[in-house]
Amino acid sequence: MLILVTYDVAVSKPLGQKRLRRVAKVCEAYGIRVQNSVFECKVDATQYKQLQLALLDIIKESEDSLRFYELGNNYKNKVVHFGVKEALNVEEPLIL
Amino acid sequence: MLILVTYDVAVSKPLGQKRLRRVAKVCEAYGIRVQNSVFECKVDATQYKQLQLALLDIIKESEDSLRFYELGNNYKNKVVHFGVKEALNVEEPLIL
Repeated sequence: MLILVTYDVAVSKPLGQKRLRRVAKVCEAYGIRVQNSVFECKVDATQYKQLQLALLDIIKESEDSLRFYELGNNYKNKVVHFGVKEALNVEEPLIL
Repeated sequence: MLILVTYDVAVSKPLGQKRLRRVAKVCEAYGIRVQNSVFECKVDATQYKQLQLALLDIIKESEDSLRFYELGNNYKNKVVHFGVKEALNVEEPLIL
């Protein structure tokens, strides 16, 4: 299923920048960045839980915001993009 | 249906800050801000189209990024939030 992860990390607070980098790094391990603070992750239920736990271990819940949206398996017609940085298709092999 | 709007506006470029404010203002007219650049909008098909057109009229497609995600009508169990700024429920009256 496709999971959308969106976050706001309080970068003006102490250690915020560090948390922001760590959040992005974990998200990169599970999916692709489609905007600065938005990742699309193709995961199964176990990976989804792991991703949630890994991010909860990083963020400071009194300062940061973290949201997950389940887009399910039939998501291709549910996403519309305009402008720069179109998402890569996470289901197709990436040819470098 | 619930539509998620996410955007990155190139604020370091000329007029970027102005576009960012205008994008947020349009989104506020259709839904609620759940993160800095993430809005949840409860709209019908016509409003969704209007929202898309209004935002496309503002953003600079060569610099900015704008994404829409359709979460459908059965979205309540598909959204998980952690940390600050829990979303208001767009379907329930707001008591101030």
